Amino acid sequence: MKIVAFGGGTGLSASLRALRRSDHHPLLITAVVTVADNGGSSGRLRVDRGALPPGDLRQALAALAGDDPVSTRSARLFQHRFTGEDPLSGHPVGNLVLHGLMEQLGDPVAALDHAGAMLRAVGRVLPMSREPVSLEAEVVGADPRHPDKAVTVVGQHEVAVSPGRIENLRLNPARPDACPEVLSVIGQADWLIFGPGSWYTSVIPHLLVPELARAIVASKARKLVTLNLAPDQETGGLSLADHLGALTRYLADFRADIVLADTTAVGDPRPVAAAAETLGARLALAPVAVGDGTARHDPAALGSALVPLLRTSR
Amino acid sequence: MKIVAFGGGTGLSASLRALRRSDHHPLLITAVVTVADNGGSSGRLRVDRGALPPGDLRQALAALAGDDPVSTRSARLFQHRFTGEDPLSGHPVGNLVLHGLMEQLGDPVAALDHAGAMLRAVGRVLPMSREPVSLEAEVVGADPRHPDKAVTVVGQHEVAVSPGRIENLRLNPARPDACPEVLSVIGQADWLIFGPGSWYTSVIPHLLVPELARAIVASKARKLVTLNLAPDQETGGLSLADHLGALTRYLADFRADIVLADTTAVGDPRPVAAAAETLGARLALAPVAVGDGTARHDPAALGSALVPLLRTSR
Repeated sequence: MKIVAFGGGTGLSASLRALRRSDHHPLLITAVVTVADNGGSSGRLRVDRGALPPGDLRQALAALAGDDPVSTRSARLFQHRFTGEDPLSGHPVGNLVLHGLMEQLGDPVAALDHAGAMLRAVGRVLPMSREPVSLEAEVVGADPRHPDKAVTVVGQHEVAVSPGRIENLRLNPARPDACPEVLSVIGQADWLIFGPGSWYTSVIPHLLVPELARAIVASKARKLVTLNLAPDQETGGLSLADHLGALTRYLADFRADIVLADTTAVGDPRPVAAAAETLGARLALAPVAVGDGTARHDPAALGSALVPLLRTSR
Repeated sequence: MKIVAFGGGTGLSASLRALRRSDHHPLLITAVVTVADNGGSSGRLRVDRGALPPGDLRQALAALAGDDPVSTRSARLFQHRFTGEDPLSGHPVGNLVLHGLMEQLGDPVAALDHAGAMLRAVGRVLPMSREPVSLEAEVVGADPRHPDKAVTVVGQHEVAVSPGRIENLRLNPARPDACPEVLSVIGQADWLIFGPGSWYTSVIPHLLVPELARAIVASKARKLVTLNLAPDQETGGLSLADHLGALTRYLADFRADIVLADTTAVGDPRPVAAAAETLGARLALAPVAVGDGTARHDPAALGSALVPLLRTSR
């Protein structure tokens, strides 16, 4: 069964760690990752060296790394951030490995495929586009002194941490080419999975790439949306039902088959079920958060909920 | 058959690439590498981050990398130097991987063993000491205006490129601890191999570590010295026979069984044979240079000469 999971950083990793737990009938997993990151190590590599931001790609690779001892340790190395105060400090080793591979091989897909081989990854990681893009948005109330005024906020990091209500999210360039390998796997997929993750900066950007949007809508694959556990800074004002509405606001023809939400986080399920229904989806509830009360998905619990849903017949 | 090859950068790599060609009865190869490098990327990592200089270790690993396609490409990645003008430029990716592993694992031997696993290396790479050391020397004529005056030159790079005649080479600290794993492999080895390589900055430093010197002298292993093809900057005034004399100047009890030299480079073999005899060694001659006239060992030719010598009975 061929699965394509769309996202950015931490949320996509949770989804991938959940999907890879299907041991007896392994899923063929492809992660499709946003390339709009402009913060931290990725931002420095992007500004200083014109790099495709590697951080979210690295996280997806680490989530899919083989579970033999060598691959496990290599994945930890990829995630290890250099300490100290010199120019290396703050860079995860894997960001530098990925950037080095891209520079050496001249192609991000070849670089990611090789990094996947180095980590004996159980799936493939692809960028949504071969070129870095920027995220921009009008944010109402970005300046707390003018709560009703819309301000243009530029940069994924800036959008993610801005107070206020995000409107008119867009890419720059507005119509980047999709990675052709992504279009190909979407065409062959059995399932497309969206979320969890930062909704405006990790999930919706995929819907803003015109070729991707068309391929997603045209795909015969079923679609599953995994909702977040709690609002974050960028979606402070959005309910879980609003999260679903945001998908069709940016891609009117977006439809889904299943919406998966955490039993506790969903609260009253009725508005979420209604919003799911407008997408053509049924709402599935399961306990998928870690047990300690923090708003993180537990990969084992998410896998136990997610994988049987994917195995249901149409 | 257990082989320990001592050296530094390029020369050691040539030796390792030669030794690994023994396909039918693979040799168990351990490379022991100097840790005095203070130039280039290694020097920057050493100064900025207190790192064990990784450059020569990386070169040895690349020389021993598995010959499957993934390992071959990973080895090329390790050797790839970042381009550009920002703080990353000039660092080979493998130096950053090794430094990251050392920082993550807290131990250079564990780091090298993991890097070897990443590259499916056909041998092990160990540092001569777990701590970086400095090389210093009195160099007669280092200042061309005073050709007879001895000047103290500090730093492996500075010693390597200084004009003049090197005298009184020493380490700082003068008596660093040897890496215990190296002492152990010397004790179990069938052969110890010295050179080719920068004589003062890659070969002799091993003889200056007191525990290593004692282990080398005490070892029941046979010893082979591979001579260089041409004088380099640091040994401008030394004949090949003088190279052998330099070994006993720094370790009086150094003895060998075989001295291997290139048939053409040796010129009149008699003084070299005589110098070999003072070490207790016979001189073996073979064409081991690349065919284009440059002073580089050809791994295939060196392997064809070296491996049968190692297989001769005592």
